[in-house]
Amino acid sequence: MGEWLPSTTYALLGLLDFFDELSGYELRKAAEGSLRFFFWSPAQSSIYAEMRRASAAGLVTSRVVPGTDAPDKRLYRITDEGRDQLRRWLEDAPIEPMVVKHAVALRVFFGHLARPERLRALLEDHAKATEALLTGLGEVRAGLAGDDRFRYPDLVGEWGERYYRGDLEGTEALLERLTDRGQGQEQEQEGPG
Amino acid sequence: MGEWLPSTTYALLGLLDFFDELSGYELRKAAEGSLRFFFWSPAQSSIYAEMRRASAAGLVTSRVVPGTDAPDKRLYRITDEGRDQLRRWLEDAPIEPMVVKHAVALRVFFGHLARPERLRALLEDHAKATEALLTGLGEVRAGLAGDDRFRYPDLVGEWGERYYRGDLEGTEALLERLTDRGQGQEQEQEGPG
Repeated sequence: MGEWLPSTTYALLGLLDFFDELSGYELRKAAEGSLRFFFWSPAQSSIYAEMRRASAAGLVTSRVVPGTDAPDKRLYRITDEGRDQLRRWLEDAPIEPMVVKHAVALRVFFGHLARPERLRALLEDHAKATEALLTGLGEVRAGLAGDDRFRYPDLVGEWGERYYRGDLEGTEALLERLTDRGQGQEQEQEGPG
Repeated sequence: MGEWLPSTTYALLGLLDFFDELSGYELRKAAEGSLRFFFWSPAQSSIYAEMRRASAAGLVTSRVVPGTDAPDKRLYRITDEGRDQLRRWLEDAPIEPMVVKHAVALRVFFGHLARPERLRALLEDHAKATEALLTGLGEVRAGLAGDDRFRYPDLVGEWGERYYRGDLEGTEALLERLTDRGQGQEQEQEGPG
């Protein structure tokens, strides 16, 4: 095995390692509460595809638990081999360059061609989305608090808070600058409220 | 035309709009000094492919300037139609979700399986890379200063500084926490320096 699996495979193996066993649905929920802040939240279908591949490679095992009132469900568990591969990835795999694709920043870059009201709306929406993300991150961290098993996820969550606060502060500072330059047009005659 | 072109096409059209005309090489240099901080820095080959497509769609024109001591070069210029399409994209195109893929944060998440020295090294390298990126961004902004044509790129640069400082502060705080918990082992006997 000279080649590395996709990062998503290791991310899912790592999530499984925090728990005894998880269904595909639980794995997706765990990813949404963690990976989405700094990485990528895989779709349910791609989680099942990853688990099939990991199973074929001996990195996970699974068993089907018959449902009583609910449908049967398959539970996945990381194997010793899976854990070894995960450790090896952490130790030796090359670090992929960081990727940021910031659709709003890209548009502001060409702001001389946009209506000022459009720019403001984009920035205000982005600020709200970032605030919502920070709220979500705070809720996730509150759920991890005090559980030493999740010490590292909590540390990454703290990092994420600084990271996204930097984005939010930048967005707010930019909105202020656009207002200072008098780009925001007052709409004084909107009729009776 | 009910569909949108890839964001990269608009990004390159937008760069062309700042200048009279640019060669493919100059376009790549302009992208590296701007798009790479918040978006994506396209390869030279994909810039030529994008320009061929934009040319076929009437969004850019080009002319070949014969070289005297250097090879001939093709210069690209945005058309009025290209500028119209760019304005329409800024006004109406849906905003793609922000993408962050942070390879180091992903690994720290599973830090309980990694050697503490490996985690420290990853974080220290990431801090250095972020500092270098901030230095690069500062240099780009210094080059734009006072030129009103580049007012919006400069504002995005200021935003980027807050954004990446948030990342850097988070990285440094995390390194401190790992040290506080006594994970860093002193190496007192390394032999004579």
